[in-house]
Amino acid sequence: MPTLRLALCQVDPTVGDIAGNADMVRGWARRAADAGAQLALFPELMLTGYPVEDLVFRRSFVAASRAALHRLAADLAADGLGDLPVLVGYLDADGPPQVSADAEPGRGARNAAALLHRGAVAAVYFKHHLPNYGVFDEDRYFVPGDALTVVRIGGVDVALTICEDLWQAGGPFAVARQAGVGLVLNINGSPYELNKDDIRLPLVRRRAAEAGATVAYVNMVGGQDELVYDGDSMIVDANGTLLARAPQFVEHLLVHDVELPAAREPVGDEEVADDMRIVRTKVSDTLPRGHGDGVAVGGIIAPVADEAEVWQALVLGLRDYVNKNRFPSVVLGLSGGIDSAVVAALAVDALGAKRVVGVSLPSQHSSEHSRADAEELAKRTGLDFRIEPIQPMVDAFLANLSLSGVAVENLQARVRGVILMALSNQEGHLVLTTGNKSELAVGYSTLYGDSVGGYNPVKDVWKTLIWRLAKWRNADAERRGETPPIPENSIGKPPSAELSPGQLDSDSLPEYDVLDPILIGYVDGDLGREGLVASGHDPAVVDRVLRMVDTAEYKRRQSAPGTKISMKAFGRDRRLPVTNRWREDG
Amino acid sequence: MPTLRLALCQVDPTVGDIAGNADMVRGWARRAADAGAQLALFPELMLTGYPVEDLVFRRSFVAASRAALHRLAADLAADGLGDLPVLVGYLDADGPPQVSADAEPGRGARNAAALLHRGAVAAVYFKHHLPNYGVFDEDRYFVPGDALTVVRIGGVDVALTICEDLWQAGGPFAVARQAGVGLVLNINGSPYELNKDDIRLPLVRRRAAEAGATVAYVNMVGGQDELVYDGDSMIVDANGTLLARAPQFVEHLLVHDVELPAAREPVGDEEVADDMRIVRTKVSDTLPRGHGDGVAVGGIIAPVADEAEVWQALVLGLRDYVNKNRFPSVVLGLSGGIDSAVVAALAVDALGAKRVVGVSLPSQHSSEHSRADAEELAKRTGLDFRIEPIQPMVDAFLANLSLSGVAVENLQARVRGVILMALSNQEGHLVLTTGNKSELAVGYSTLYGDSVGGYNPVKDVWKTLIWRLAKWRNADAERRGETPPIPENSIGKPPSAELSPGQLDSDSLPEYDVLDPILIGYVDGDLGREGLVASGHDPAVVDRVLRMVDTAEYKRRQSAPGTKISMKAFGRDRRLPVTNRWREDG
Repeated sequence: MPTLRLALCQVDPTVGDIAGNADMVRGWARRAADAGAQLALFPELMLTGYPVEDLVFRRSFVAASRAALHRLAADLAADGLGDLPVLVGYLDADGPPQVSADAEPGRGARNAAALLHRGAVAAVYFKHHLPNYGVFDEDRYFVPGDALTVVRIGGVDVALTICEDLWQAGGPFAVARQAGVGLVLNINGSPYELNKDDIRLPLVRRRAAEAGATVAYVNMVGGQDELVYDGDSMIVDANGTLLARAPQFVEHLLVHDVELPAAREPVGDEEVADDMRIVRTKVSDTLPRGHGDGVAVGGIIAPVADEAEVWQALVLGLRDYVNKNRFPSVVLGLSGGIDSAVVAALAVDALGAKRVVGVSLPSQHSSEHSRADAEELAKRTGLDFRIEPIQPMVDAFLANLSLSGVAVENLQARVRGVILMALSNQEGHLVLTTGNKSELAVGYSTLYGDSVGGYNPVKDVWKTLIWRLAKWRNADAERRGETPPIPENSIGKPPSAELSPGQLDSDSLPEYDVLDPILIGYVDGDLGREGLVASGHDPAVVDRVLRMVDTAEYKRRQSAPGTKISMKAFGRDRRLPVTNRWREDG
Repeated sequence: MPTLRLALCQVDPTVGDIAGNADMVRGWARRAADAGAQLALFPELMLTGYPVEDLVFRRSFVAASRAALHRLAADLAADGLGDLPVLVGYLDADGPPQVSADAEPGRGARNAAALLHRGAVAAVYFKHHLPNYGVFDEDRYFVPGDALTVVRIGGVDVALTICEDLWQAGGPFAVARQAGVGLVLNINGSPYELNKDDIRLPLVRRRAAEAGATVAYVNMVGGQDELVYDGDSMIVDANGTLLARAPQFVEHLLVHDVELPAAREPVGDEEVADDMRIVRTKVSDTLPRGHGDGVAVGGIIAPVADEAEVWQALVLGLRDYVNKNRFPSVVLGLSGGIDSAVVAALAVDALGAKRVVGVSLPSQHSSEHSRADAEELAKRTGLDFRIEPIQPMVDAFLANLSLSGVAVENLQARVRGVILMALSNQEGHLVLTTGNKSELAVGYSTLYGDSVGGYNPVKDVWKTLIWRLAKWRNADAERRGETPPIPENSIGKPPSAELSPGQLDSDSLPEYDVLDPILIGYVDGDLGREGLVASGHDPAVVDRVLRMVDTAEYKRRQSAPGTKISMKAFGRDRRLPVTNRWREDG
């Protein structure tokens, strides 16, 4: 049986940076060749980044993607890498746009993959299954492909597929079996979700069985707005054996030698199988080794435990948002509470302490421990610490307006927001917001107050998980002999907004260990009132919580983007009307 | 030929108010019967309102819609209206949800229409063409129907269709011809767009010709979040003659007698035509008159001129947003400039002067005319006028922080935002934002400053159109012998943010008559740099404007919802990545 040395390039492209992404392909193709690879794979829409959303409708953008693809093929050849077949995702379009009274001009676009070889495009594949759920809107953007591309490389028949093609039964993988291929390549822009790595391997195994072929799955890594791609690239053989697996959350070159069956079918006319055509192309019957004397550097890396995985996802999402948008630094308010402490620790892990400014913004209602805990956090992490008492500004408003109750509470949060934004304007920092998902769900925050900010790393993290993350991060530091970043007092004390004397979250909300399971059922699980009560929750508490969630949609609409770690983060993948009278409790 | 008296019920349901919407059907069915109608039509998704977005994924919501439909059928019969066939849009679901690793639980939902008769559901139709562009995401929510429902009513064969079925050639209207129907009903939730009424009539004519049948088109009216449904219901015969047309932007009962061919086909087994089945049901060979001795009250109403049409759309969108969300009143800052003057006039038209609070928020940079023009506007419109000088609060921040330049400019806008939100919290008003689309496009606004607010009526209105609207509104008042609401000085003076001494918009932006055409080409037309330069714009100005637009996406993401009047409003129907390095000018 022929042996093919595969290089899965798990890299972090930037949306819209077509030239930079093409350069990234050249650099990693060189590394792959130096490791002796005979075939290199890059992620879905590698050249444009993913998702490009409505940029698809700009003809100039599609044209730039196509031009960059052909330039890349030539550049790889000029780099002396022409003999290495390189599979790369890019944006394409074909034919005239679909004509309908309301149709977008970009219709006709393709989520495409091209095999580059000897300075040219040797083969092209268009994604067949288009996902249109959760964060995905690909029916809006792309026309599905109807042909499976099979390429003969080094005497092995290799099928090309893209992302969602793997998630649905039937289609390309079933057709790959009929085409008798030895290897299926699957290139991905597959966002991280809690425990998705537990789903992914069984899924790749199922498709390998369906295709009767080895599957090489390469995924993107890095943050893009609310999404975090976690990598987790892998190779699984036709029997379901995991041959190699890359780590999550870091760029990685996974090189592995795979024994594959020699091609049996003639390269001839098009065939038709089920609803797809099969289009065969020959690249090479035999392949030279790559440039270097490299050795395969594959290996199986065990997926990380839950808290560690979430922490890494949040750090990567934040780091890439800040760096890809070219912010020099971040600023956030430090209340002494757990949410801002966790966000500060995440920011220091993501950017280093020198790029993080923490501001204590005490009011007359701030407890002594709030200031002390914020200062302790700053000392432990080494971030740039400031103190800006808010009372003089709050008093100026109170002297000029007749305010009482919630208006006074919110005023304090808004003065803090104005101060953080002033520091942002004056010094160039991105403001980080620190509201957790539980608060966001029930609307327990001040619009234009504590919700002010450009990015919220814990937007999709339930409060009870915030505590678990804090404890895990501290324990992990101790395990490594480092100072735990988060003051124990911030973890242990009862949560409070400190906007009025003696105020506690539990005055307004159920305890979080009661609240979170209800929210998880309602938000993540789309359970109705009946389902929640049936699963054992107190009906009165359920009604109270559901009412709060149903009326907080407007606040959520105006909230900052933040790293997504579940199917149902608030934001683009959860779309509810603001004007809506539907109430679960009738 | 049989004559059928049709009642097109152009009504304004509320999303999620299933009981209220069902009551609305009962009330209007009574009015239709009293007018002698033999068939009454209500809009798409009448029972749930439209769009319901991710509420589709909640099983309890789908179940409530189905239960309400059957209760409505019984209630209509109990009301003595059982003999009147009533077509009503509702949300349905069938079979088990589609199973896939990532599939949403609500998959399998249907955008449905039911014909209610004699206390029961006599026939059901599932929407065939699902729109998935612009504001529409129906591929996310619905499974398309594959059968055309033909109902015999009063001896006439009538086909049931829904909205998008009309916008695409082929499908239900072509199959209706093969089924030999005399009438096609088309029920809609079709949002207003500038000049859409000019497209709609030719489209209905084209489909009437395709079906070889009369088409009765009924559309929703009213505001729902960013959408405004404009009504414009109509009846067009097979020859393309417009028989009756309802006015835009108001609820309306359009009753008209239509001569229709008697049914020729037998009601028998299912037939297959193209890609759809034909399912026939008999309701009645003859029909009694309705209850009353009513007369048909149709007529052809000419569509209104552009500025009047836009003004009415903005007034309706604002009124419904405020009322459906149950806000007692609105508050906005009055700068003396044109944007806030137009928004104030819109609010007074929408809600009455007693429900509008206008606040002058002068700083040390505010010109004397700013205060005078705001006061003059208040006098003309009769709104509740207040003055809150911002300098004491601004000074408190300046005394405690070291700020300069843009940070000081933004501080003033943010202090204004805090004051408006304090008034909102204290007194219960919804805050209106007043930034126009040109400002929003180039990011010429202060985040958490002038962008603060729950709703922005002019969010989708280019600056040059703001001026046209102001002039039209004043001239219209004069025509009617009323006081023009907007001070001429607010219309005539050069635009300024007044955040620093002598500041003018033209210091930072091209003149609006240069800027707006470039923005319209780039935003509405998806033209690239090349296309804009080719259409005669100065390349240097184009580059400057495109750079501003490309970097303002984050601000737009955090902007308030606002009435949409074009295909490419900023918001849900325009989706761009924040992290994005793509630049048209390379």
